[in-house]
Amino acid sequence: MCWTITETDQYDQAAIDRLGNKFLVGNGYFGYRGTLEEYTKEQKTATIVSGIYDRVGDLWREPVNAPNGGYVQVSVEGQPLNVLSGNVKCHSQSLDYAHSVHHRRTAFETASGNMVLIIARRFASLAHPHLLCIEYTLQACRECEIFIQTGIDGDVWDLNGPHLERMAPSTAGGVICLSASTHERGIPVAVCERTLLPGGEETIFQGEKRILREVRARINWTHPYIFYKFVSIHTGVDSTAPLEEGIALCNRAAAEGFEKLYQEHCRLWERRWQECDIQIKGDEEAQQALRFSMYHLLAIAPTHADTVSIPARGLSGQVYKGAIFWDTEIFMLPFFNHAFPAISRNLLMYRYHTLDGARRKAAEYGYRGAFYAWESQDTGDDACTLFNVTDVFTNRPLRTYFRDKQVHISADVAYAFWQYYIASGDESIFLDGGAEVIFECARFFLSALYYSPERDRYELLDVTGPDEYHERVHNNAYTNLMAAHTFETCLKVRDLLLARYPAQAQALIARLGFARDLAAIESALKKIYLPGPAKTQPVIPQFDGYFALEDVALPDLLKRKLHPHEYLGAGSGLATTTQIIKQADVILAMFLFSERYTKQEKAANWEYYEPRTEHGSSLSACSYSLIAAQIGKVDWAYRYFMKTATIDLTGEGKQYVGPLYIGGTHPAGNGGAWMAAVLGLCGIRCASDMIHIEPRLPEHWSEVNLPLAYRGQRLNLRLTQSEVEVQAAEPLTRGVEIELGGAVYRLPESGALTLSYLPEQVGQSA
Amino acid sequence: MCWTITETDQYDQAAIDRLGNKFLVGNGYFGYRGTLEEYTKEQKTATIVSGIYDRVGDLWREPVNAPNGGYVQVSVEGQPLNVLSGNVKCHSQSLDYAHSVHHRRTAFETASGNMVLIIARRFASLAHPHLLCIEYTLQACRECEIFIQTGIDGDVWDLNGPHLERMAPSTAGGVICLSASTHERGIPVAVCERTLLPGGEETIFQGEKRILREVRARINWTHPYIFYKFVSIHTGVDSTAPLEEGIALCNRAAAEGFEKLYQEHCRLWERRWQECDIQIKGDEEAQQALRFSMYHLLAIAPTHADTVSIPARGLSGQVYKGAIFWDTEIFMLPFFNHAFPAISRNLLMYRYHTLDGARRKAAEYGYRGAFYAWESQDTGDDACTLFNVTDVFTNRPLRTYFRDKQVHISADVAYAFWQYYIASGDESIFLDGGAEVIFECARFFLSALYYSPERDRYELLDVTGPDEYHERVHNNAYTNLMAAHTFETCLKVRDLLLARYPAQAQALIARLGFARDLAAIESALKKIYLPGPAKTQPVIPQFDGYFALEDVALPDLLKRKLHPHEYLGAGSGLATTTQIIKQADVILAMFLFSERYTKQEKAANWEYYEPRTEHGSSLSACSYSLIAAQIGKVDWAYRYFMKTATIDLTGEGKQYVGPLYIGGTHPAGNGGAWMAAVLGLCGIRCASDMIHIEPRLPEHWSEVNLPLAYRGQRLNLRLTQSEVEVQAAEPLTRGVEIELGGAVYRLPESGALTLSYLPEQVGQSA
Repeated sequence: MCWTITETDQYDQAAIDRLGNKFLVGNGYFGYRGTLEEYTKEQKTATIVSGIYDRVGDLWREPVNAPNGGYVQVSVEGQPLNVLSGNVKCHSQSLDYAHSVHHRRTAFETASGNMVLIIARRFASLAHPHLLCIEYTLQACRECEIFIQTGIDGDVWDLNGPHLERMAPSTAGGVICLSASTHERGIPVAVCERTLLPGGEETIFQGEKRILREVRARINWTHPYIFYKFVSIHTGVDSTAPLEEGIALCNRAAAEGFEKLYQEHCRLWERRWQECDIQIKGDEEAQQALRFSMYHLLAIAPTHADTVSIPARGLSGQVYKGAIFWDTEIFMLPFFNHAFPAISRNLLMYRYHTLDGARRKAAEYGYRGAFYAWESQDTGDDACTLFNVTDVFTNRPLRTYFRDKQVHISADVAYAFWQYYIASGDESIFLDGGAEVIFECARFFLSALYYSPERDRYELLDVTGPDEYHERVHNNAYTNLMAAHTFETCLKVRDLLLARYPAQAQALIARLGFARDLAAIESALKKIYLPGPAKTQPVIPQFDGYFALEDVALPDLLKRKLHPHEYLGAGSGLATTTQIIKQADVILAMFLFSERYTKQEKAANWEYYEPRTEHGSSLSACSYSLIAAQIGKVDWAYRYFMKTATIDLTGEGKQYVGPLYIGGTHPAGNGGAWMAAVLGLCGIRCASDMIHIEPRLPEHWSEVNLPLAYRGQRLNLRLTQSEVEVQAAEPLTRGVEIELGGAVYRLPESGALTLSYLPEQVGQSA
Repeated sequence: MCWTITETDQYDQAAIDRLGNKFLVGNGYFGYRGTLEEYTKEQKTATIVSGIYDRVGDLWREPVNAPNGGYVQVSVEGQPLNVLSGNVKCHSQSLDYAHSVHHRRTAFETASGNMVLIIARRFASLAHPHLLCIEYTLQACRECEIFIQTGIDGDVWDLNGPHLERMAPSTAGGVICLSASTHERGIPVAVCERTLLPGGEETIFQGEKRILREVRARINWTHPYIFYKFVSIHTGVDSTAPLEEGIALCNRAAAEGFEKLYQEHCRLWERRWQECDIQIKGDEEAQQALRFSMYHLLAIAPTHADTVSIPARGLSGQVYKGAIFWDTEIFMLPFFNHAFPAISRNLLMYRYHTLDGARRKAAEYGYRGAFYAWESQDTGDDACTLFNVTDVFTNRPLRTYFRDKQVHISADVAYAFWQYYIASGDESIFLDGGAEVIFECARFFLSALYYSPERDRYELLDVTGPDEYHERVHNNAYTNLMAAHTFETCLKVRDLLLARYPAQAQALIARLGFARDLAAIESALKKIYLPGPAKTQPVIPQFDGYFALEDVALPDLLKRKLHPHEYLGAGSGLATTTQIIKQADVILAMFLFSERYTKQEKAANWEYYEPRTEHGSSLSACSYSLIAAQIGKVDWAYRYFMKTATIDLTGEGKQYVGPLYIGGTHPAGNGGAWMAAVLGLCGIRCASDMIHIEPRLPEHWSEVNLPLAYRGQRLNLRLTQSEVEVQAAEPLTRGVEIELGGAVYRLPESGALTLSYLPEQVGQSA
């Protein structure tokens, strides 16, 4: 099975952007785009550091792109060897995604007809979060002199920069350094580099925004020229003395040596894959797409801190302000819950650390409790602007209601805490902040509810659900269901804590002044309006009045467009007065509350909403895959699975809106791929008391092997078209029950269980 | 004092449109546009009949334009005498608005150098609602032969027609007839005409859509040629046999003769003016503008029926679908209440007759009770479309929320009933349907209310207030105040009826099943949220979050326009995200609830909202005048008074939106002129127990004389800069109390009272 993905001869700007995302390496602390060593800001080189943001003027706050310590430019015969200069004989760029190692290999022909080969590999050390390591090899057919410039390039790509000021180059022994401060808050940022450049005497060049080493050497075919770069990245967010720590790290790394660091790094990545790799027999394409999706989640998952989370475009750039959306909680967390619960815990704790920001936002809008940011950065204050889209007809900013009205975000956060608990059994999360988050989210919805005396029920009015083409609607089914779930979760967590940790529970309730609200939540939960399927109408209305909107076919709607890039939502967008929706909304709710609906209801809703969904969001495909699987439409489930699983492989997603670059990786799509494969096609649903399995494998999948973390226990599952085998991956510490085809089985002490099933039976069982 | 208004030499299309409105004659049953006798549909000739509507295809339903019985075309030397043909030596068109008589006088020069004079006058008989009378005189310097064509032209101007089908010309004795049926409902329409044409033998020409008499005659300077046209208009809405009744009417009128009918008509108009004319000494301009405003109200006021009301553009055409808006209740009714209470009663009964339409609309939107049509026609069903404006950038219809969200309409209706009762003392209106209307309006608001447990109050969410640039807002101050007023009125009417007519009251409550709702209304009234001035913020927020909108200066906002006709509201209009409002909203509420606010509060709000108001509606100026008067800003009160009082005199309002004609008369602006003069500058406020007077006459107004109907008693008031004189116009039948400067005076048996005041004192008294 291939664990490497390779592309050759692609260096026009669109390909450079695409490969920069696709071939990203990262370790959760920073992401380093898959660009070539000779590239500069025009080619979107970037070292995006997790959790540090900056704002210039009244432009968007966005992540800081650190100075590029990976810069190398080699010249031969006075000509730089640069793929952009066009003297390339052959070229390939590849990613070993088993280990997050980037490789490049390029042969240049010089003016004199010599052939010079560059081979380089790099990795963002998983063992040392602040460390980037590069091996750079030069070889020539005929002996020649090479001129090497390498060091730190501080003239970086920014969407709304420049963010780094007071840039100061310096040296410390063999280490060169570039330190700077961010514009808004003066946070120090330091990038250091240690390289041993063999050959002639090294010169240090210090420019305004760069510090480079320069050396001349001679190479030939039998005496390749190899050097190693050890680059450190530190900021004041994560370090008390970024410069000093960087110098020390570079020296330590150099002493350790590239090969040892590389081996250590690869071992850690291999261990990761042991805990999450899924083997699909009979479908190499799906196999690669699913692994590649998981790779991109792993490369940006924070293991070093619980104060950061995963932005919507990962660590691939500054797009979407580097902000954390609901993407993380709803579409990425399931993967981590069942593979790396500790990472889930970090991601959730980020929401606890930003709870005060959510409280400020609630207060800003006249609510109580926690109204999480639609676009959350370091403080939890909302980075989302009120005018998020530009009208193509007038070039004016359009008012959108993402920030004000997507209240479901707070329910998504609470849902995620509960899902983590269900999957992990880890009660400590509640004591460590989870209960406070959930209570405050419930309090938020309590303060947002209206009671209709006319209908004797509580309603949530004037919200925007996941479908952003219909803003400011009443009783969005998804939002109401999620708010009710927040109330339920709040009461369950209260009961759990009162039973198991009464003193802490009472102290928390007292500290939050939450007793009265708890009583109100209990009574509101009884009467909150949950739009559901009716006997005469099995399709859940997405919101009040949805069915009264124009029922136009999607192709007909698209024909009405007068401009290829016109936005279909906002004030007067084409979709707003129709039933065409941007992304899964009711269908997502049906997945999140799978046990609430019958297969018939799910089928009716899928058939209704699927043709009406424009999939204008990368979050949409996986929900349609998941419900398609549940209702036995395996072909559709597979199609939507492949759509979400290949999103960063093909890189065919939208890269620009007008002049604005919106490309990057799609971690929610990556997480959706895992969900569609494991929770959809493999049909695994973990409840607190047992694991339900209802496989709907595509016909050409002969076998699937997958590891699963479940309430502190690691299991291995093997699914075929007729059998399910469950095996403990480590000695059983607790009873594990499996439900299949309506019967419940207990994993024996021996730790292995093989069950037969007939796919048709499973399909008909509900 | 001049009672005639004249214009000369105006016959380009814009002037023709403008004069068609300005010189309209009417009697409430029909309006006849101020066009010339030789005009046809291109010049917008129209006979708009009150209360008959028709719809073709999926275009707007609109009033029916009856065949034009006033058509006359004279030819001399083979050339038609038509101002449009350009052989005009001198021309004038004028309106005697004391009597609603249209005059035209044109001298034509013929090809041979002869001079031919046309003199014509016409009136829509106030004594005979179905009758139009025309006198047509021809004179020539030198003897010549004239060829006259006159009769009924059925090829009429329509916005969304043609509405008349199966057009059938016929004759009956000396009467010619054109009968037809409306397209949608087949309602018969018949126009008949009787003319005696002296001269040679008359020929009848019957075309497809016209029937004309043709005759040749000889005229000269000393032997003018005079003929009279008696034209009847009947429809199946108001007549069981339109054609037969028309023939009979024409014959009766011809027997009566023009002069007698003219005298009878003029006497009735003079009697009208006796009951309403206001004399302003010292300001001829204001005098004329105010009289002209009252004229236009009188010409279209229904005296013949209580099943019709006054459309927003009167009877001047089909603009705005001939629909009744809140304009009638809020801006026209005060004039009628205090001059012609019987007309007020007709207007209000129209709302009772259309109550079932309002019930249907409420049910359509999931409410109970009566949700009156935003644009009401004959059935009370809403003629307002969901897409009421066209985007100038994309030419697409824009979704507007006039129909769905301007719930204040039902409160406006209830308010009007109560105001009529306050002014007239007529309790019978409640027994005759008023109570049912008010109860159902209160029930509507009850069913629309939401309770916020968080704020322990009832709120009205997702509404549009008078300011249509901000749709879908929460707790619009105007709307909430008006809804609360509806509740109050409902309870007062219940109490009044239970005390005075207990059996009828109980029967009504039982029939409507209203007992439980009454209890709910009582408790809702206690907790309905009424946005008011706060100590720290005397300005009432127009709706939740208004102050958070961009506070841009109006000229700066207008500079942002990219297209001269772009609409500032709807989905993404320029004003929607700013504090710029279309028209008086809070300021109107402050007038309607004058006693609720201090002068300081009114001043603070006026100063705040005035510069932020774009006056994109003709309803806006009078509110700013009224409150300006109340806070002693007499110069501003006068300026806004003149703005609303001259609206149809100058005709400078917007005539076209894109290709759509929106011109016509502005009865709400006319009513606003009366309000600004009497309720504002003269400072008269009628309560149920007394008349409050606080004059703020402009300095150059030396004296104002005005009649006032008040609770069955007709009074004459005389105001100067230092005195107020109140005199009974007829023997006193009840006690009348006057409050001036804080003291209350009783009108003596003698029926006259003269009070002195110092304007400064009045200004400082509150």
